Amino acid sequence: MPSIRGQVADIFNRRIYAATVFFEDGKIVSINPVAKDAAGTGHYIIPGFTDAHVHIESSMLVPAEFARLAVVHGTVSTISDPHEIANVCGLQGVAFMIENGNTVPFKFNFGAPSCVPATIFETAGAVIDANDTKKLLLRDDIKYLSEMMNFPGVLCKDEEVMKKIAAAHTLNKPIDGHAPGVRGEKAIQYINAGISTDHECFTAEEALDKLQAGMKILIREGSAAKNFEALIGLLHDYPDMIMFCSDDKHPDSLVAGHINQLCARAVAKGMDVFNVLRAACVNPVLHYKTGTGLMRPGDAADFIVVKDLKNFEAVQTYIDGELVAENGKSLISSPEPGIINNFLCSKKMEGDFTADWNNEKSITVIEALDGQLITNKLNWPPKVINRKITSDIENDILKIVVVNRYHHAPIAKAFIKNFGLKLGAIASSVAHDSHNIVAVGVDDKSICKAVNLVIEKKGGISCVSNDAEMVLGLPVAGLMSNENGYRVAAAYTAIDAMAKSLGSHLSAPFMTLSFMALLVIPHVKLSDKGLFDGDEFTLTPSPSPPSVERGAAP
Amino acid sequence: MPSIRGQVADIFNRRIYAATVFFEDGKIVSINPVAKDAAGTGHYIIPGFTDAHVHIESSMLVPAEFARLAVVHGTVSTISDPHEIANVCGLQGVAFMIENGNTVPFKFNFGAPSCVPATIFETAGAVIDANDTKKLLLRDDIKYLSEMMNFPGVLCKDEEVMKKIAAAHTLNKPIDGHAPGVRGEKAIQYINAGISTDHECFTAEEALDKLQAGMKILIREGSAAKNFEALIGLLHDYPDMIMFCSDDKHPDSLVAGHINQLCARAVAKGMDVFNVLRAACVNPVLHYKTGTGLMRPGDAADFIVVKDLKNFEAVQTYIDGELVAENGKSLISSPEPGIINNFLCSKKMEGDFTADWNNEKSITVIEALDGQLITNKLNWPPKVINRKITSDIENDILKIVVVNRYHHAPIAKAFIKNFGLKLGAIASSVAHDSHNIVAVGVDDKSICKAVNLVIEKKGGISCVSNDAEMVLGLPVAGLMSNENGYRVAAAYTAIDAMAKSLGSHLSAPFMTLSFMALLVIPHVKLSDKGLFDGDEFTLTPSPSPPSVERGAAP
Repeated sequence: MPSIRGQVADIFNRRIYAATVFFEDGKIVSINPVAKDAAGTGHYIIPGFTDAHVHIESSMLVPAEFARLAVVHGTVSTISDPHEIANVCGLQGVAFMIENGNTVPFKFNFGAPSCVPATIFETAGAVIDANDTKKLLLRDDIKYLSEMMNFPGVLCKDEEVMKKIAAAHTLNKPIDGHAPGVRGEKAIQYINAGISTDHECFTAEEALDKLQAGMKILIREGSAAKNFEALIGLLHDYPDMIMFCSDDKHPDSLVAGHINQLCARAVAKGMDVFNVLRAACVNPVLHYKTGTGLMRPGDAADFIVVKDLKNFEAVQTYIDGELVAENGKSLISSPEPGIINNFLCSKKMEGDFTADWNNEKSITVIEALDGQLITNKLNWPPKVINRKITSDIENDILKIVVVNRYHHAPIAKAFIKNFGLKLGAIASSVAHDSHNIVAVGVDDKSICKAVNLVIEKKGGISCVSNDAEMVLGLPVAGLMSNENGYRVAAAYTAIDAMAKSLGSHLSAPFMTLSFMALLVIPHVKLSDKGLFDGDEFTLTPSPSPPSVERGAAP
Repeated sequence: MPSIRGQVADIFNRRIYAATVFFEDGKIVSINPVAKDAAGTGHYIIPGFTDAHVHIESSMLVPAEFARLAVVHGTVSTISDPHEIANVCGLQGVAFMIENGNTVPFKFNFGAPSCVPATIFETAGAVIDANDTKKLLLRDDIKYLSEMMNFPGVLCKDEEVMKKIAAAHTLNKPIDGHAPGVRGEKAIQYINAGISTDHECFTAEEALDKLQAGMKILIREGSAAKNFEALIGLLHDYPDMIMFCSDDKHPDSLVAGHINQLCARAVAKGMDVFNVLRAACVNPVLHYKTGTGLMRPGDAADFIVVKDLKNFEAVQTYIDGELVAENGKSLISSPEPGIINNFLCSKKMEGDFTADWNNEKSITVIEALDGQLITNKLNWPPKVINRKITSDIENDILKIVVVNRYHHAPIAKAFIKNFGLKLGAIASSVAHDSHNIVAVGVDDKSICKAVNLVIEKKGGISCVSNDAEMVLGLPVAGLMSNENGYRVAAAYTAIDAMAKSLGSHLSAPFMTLSFMALLVIPHVKLSDKGLFDGDEFTLTPSPSPPSVERGAAP
């Protein structure tokens, strides 16, 4: 029978002891204590890590490839919301993720997306209604109802929303929340609807409010949102109600590390190591009933060997008793390429991107903020040339466009501050939540070129300057690559550097770009249907609104 | 009258003294000693640096943009061989370089290329014969006859070669050598023909031979060849006969530093600082009679202010009395874009790249060596699929092609070891010396795509994987960009990283690629006319030789 010897972490009893772990057929058979200084007890054996909330799609990798990279860092499972692909490909997209994930030894625990489409003010690729949601929740491999972003819908008891929540309750599956900044009575109402987690807190006060109302709090530290520093202190008093998650994890940062990094940072801040391991390993497994092993006899043999309980560097990762990573190398093979997509628009012409000037003295300008999903609303005099509003490079007011990727339709145009490009353009078909094509640039020629590069690849991110151009194709739903994850990370790093070389001082220009069409976060965004005021929650006049031209748009 | 105060380096008298330097109308008027501890004497004032041999084209920047970046490092002049553009655009190319260089305050000192084309076994874009050479040498702004690579032509007194040499002698302009590894009697003969420098030595012994025969030695440390460590010791005994040069300096390394770095390394190795400054500032100016200022009254006011004589970090750079760089910022404006090119081939199809199998049991394979221009000749059994020879990824034997860029012609194909790509392809129109398009890849589809990206841009470097692609266009002669040099450097860094992410372990895959068509360096290379044996100095059978198809090639 295979066995492994080391300092075993028994998180439930808060102790560490030298032992030999015997395992067979994917399960731990027994854990037999040995003398503390017996040979082979130098390393620690602990349960593998769980990312308690992650959109796999943000890694730009298909699930199997995500797993291949994540196991290197000791991650053995995730709670995965396939919200992005669901907005593009609907139920088929969810099925693709599950099937792709099933090809590798890794525990994905997908949820049923609750808000597809996110709003009625944009064109998504699919609708998942309450009946679809119920169908999904009936599946054994769908573990929960994922982040209920429609917070007003919950409070006003919207019929569809209530049906989805009821389906989850009936099936005894947890419901994830998403209620940034919600406090007091409204928070209580939201929680009382049976929503049991939140990963959107950005202050300790808000998190404490929710914890005290019985909600579990996911401390999020990903490529986009970074709340670790603000929230980690809560672990001391609420060790059973805290989990760690990344939410959005870009390929370059997945190569660098995962939940292991959060453990190391928490311990370095003086957090009790058993509390840290509860958040990183135990709490998500118990909350979502994932069945991931937790180092007890009879548990699945999901464990990792780490050199110490400071850096949590994974020497070995086991899933169901199979060694899947060792010394920084993944032992999982790259998956066979598989394609699913919903990308039907054809190439654009430069003239499609002009913004007519209708004698406006001032236009609404989106102010992007570095590292934030929220934007500000500015008013600014337009720069007009030949009765067209153009990018005003000197004042860093650049044209932003959203191109419907699902069918041929007029292009939405507006202007945005803080992208900083001095020439060229960047474009992306990763554009939350509907994943149309969003682009920012200094002139229509560059914008058109960048958009067309994305269209040629049927999805991707692109960067165009005068002489150089680069595109990272994401042909899987326009969100993910089929290539080796390390290569995708290298390409992402390269295109990120190129965008910065064009003048952008944003810390992650493509990430910021991807949130400029995310209507559910205020204050002003651009959808394929036009400029959207998040405070009024409605479309608002924009320069050169997308009129119905060329007889398109059903 | 403008003046500047500091510790002035008087290299000729090997002393440093506190002084005020007065300058006017681009010249130093007087240098007046002051008390050693007078205000403002903390920094050192020394002559600017000269790169004694550089092909500006290798920076991928036009001369004015090269200058804009170089002055930041204290470089005020170069000895520039426009050999690359001459092979593409002939005399017009040389004129372009001179005119472009004249738009900025910088001293380029161009030479007349001596070997265009380099051999008769390849298709270049132009011929510069002895009459053309003479015409060039008659110009005041052509300072020398540049590297005479046709070493056998010199020894056997080839008529054209002798005419070129005679023209330089008549006009009292120096002749640069290029005689790697040549020793003994042959070296004497070569030197006796009146060739006065060599920048190709890679051992101290060889350099010593040449120094003792009266030749001046340029210690070369660039992106391609790195001879500094081997040769710097010679500076001790031959301080008047040594210069520093880069030869080929890629954009990323030009951003990092220039001759200043070699000074710092030489001083760190214990070399006398005045000897170092002779090599870096004085010797090239005297040898090539460039008229660059050397810190004497009456000299051009070309000087730099450095913090110390250890790191040679330039605080200020002056050329003809004009402040052109300060604290790491260039004060030279980017030039207006200008285009000259010779790029006439049209896009290729995948089928153009197939290599037929003619029952060969073994094929000649080029073995590329990291960091070297030289290659080895291997024999290897071909990998055959459907009677076509294909890349053998497992054994790292990949297809290499050379595509004539000057007119439509059949494609030369061969196989090469050590590029290491596991997928995709890379291509470049920087391909010494004729600058056709050279590409290496794992399959014809990727190779075709990479080549066509270069063709679309009328020159450039490209990298293609399954999902991603990148091209850095070099529309100026297919060698240089019109963009901001820092952006070009960033793009070059990005595409280099992308090539490495496809599996190449070469330290600079595009640089190695650019030398695979350089016939004058043994042992086996590929020209647009086929596989070339550098030892026999003739074409040699290759798989699927480029027969005259599709009625092309004049």
